Amino acid sequence: MTRSPSSGAPGRGPDPGRRSERSRRAILTATRELVFEVGYPGLTIEAIAARAGVGKQTIYRWWPSKGAVMFDALLHEARQEGPALPDTGDLAADMRTVLRAIVDEFDDPVLDRMTRALGNEINNDPRLGADMLERLLGPQLEVTAERLRAAQRAGQAASGIDLPAAVEMFYAPLFYRWMLRTGPLTHAYADTVTAMAVRAIAP
Amino acid sequence: MTRSPSSGAPGRGPDPGRRSERSRRAILTATRELVFEVGYPGLTIEAIAARAGVGKQTIYRWWPSKGAVMFDALLHEARQEGPALPDTGDLAADMRTVLRAIVDEFDDPVLDRMTRALGNEINNDPRLGADMLERLLGPQLEVTAERLRAAQRAGQAASGIDLPAAVEMFYAPLFYRWMLRTGPLTHAYADTVTAMAVRAIAP
Repeated sequence: MTRSPSSGAPGRGPDPGRRSERSRRAILTATRELVFEVGYPGLTIEAIAARAGVGKQTIYRWWPSKGAVMFDALLHEARQEGPALPDTGDLAADMRTVLRAIVDEFDDPVLDRMTRALGNEINNDPRLGADMLERLLGPQLEVTAERLRAAQRAGQAASGIDLPAAVEMFYAPLFYRWMLRTGPLTHAYADTVTAMAVRAIAP
Repeated sequence: MTRSPSSGAPGRGPDPGRRSERSRRAILTATRELVFEVGYPGLTIEAIAARAGVGKQTIYRWWPSKGAVMFDALLHEARQEGPALPDTGDLAADMRTVLRAIVDEFDDPVLDRMTRALGNEINNDPRLGADMLERLLGPQLEVTAERLRAAQRAGQAASGIDLPAAVEMFYAPLFYRWMLRTGPLTHAYADTVTAMAVRAIAP
């Protein structure tokens, strides 16, 4: 959906790749800041360009819409950590760590606003949803399934379980409570969900 | 947030209450049809008024925004059934019935579009979210908690569980898979989630 800056025309200027990368980062940072300051509905490509110190056409060359820019900004944020999962050999302890970290992310006002805005875009544009699933959410679900496979080998999870469904038993309640604001989204809740999900898939 | 039509000025015409109720239903039906036909972003108060055969000011008298009209249209739809929960004495069987019915609802293209549009409005307007929680989702969660209390008395659920969290173990996975399109939302998935959630809260 988006073209990488490094695929831009080569040989223009001394180091176009590095300059492009600097512009790209500036655009993503500006997007993140502006979503927080003015909200997604008020976000414009013009404002992103002005804040990032680039021309509007630079943004349109890499992204087809403001939804696509924001998705990459969110992806960039997520990439800081990468989708790795701890494996200490104790499934409950590891998933508790992961779920608490997700609660902390939802608690971050910038990430909260960006994720809600992305949710709206996805509701309006199933293609963006497919892209998000493939590039952001999918890899996270897959490393979690991999962690559950390790738990199966260690005798901490039943062998016959539906792995994608099992993964969702951990993550869905946090997402639901965040999205629908049905109750406090705390570390205590993360721990409760972890304990119940671990029981749900126990041998 | 919205004023009931029956609270309109009395004594205007032979039966203003009944006429108001007719207008209200026409407005909600028109909203439901239009959301399906043109999508929520394209929905306007003008189009609803034209389709319902009422003046725009009639709509604005009862609802402050198109989001509020759509929320009432969705509530009206949900009210057709009411938030009752079966209690045959078999928790797993009853929750399987409920979760399969939810899958069928998400599978209905009109409800799907309306619920996605409402989700967007809630993301943009936390007050609407609070209203939705109080009038639509809250009662459903409460009758489910009541069903789980009965299961506790029948020895089918542990006595010490966190009831709101337990309720979310049933509903959240369906919502997550619908919202994020992470996999097929089928009766088989409803059955898998039910089985895992029942295990999660077992004594």
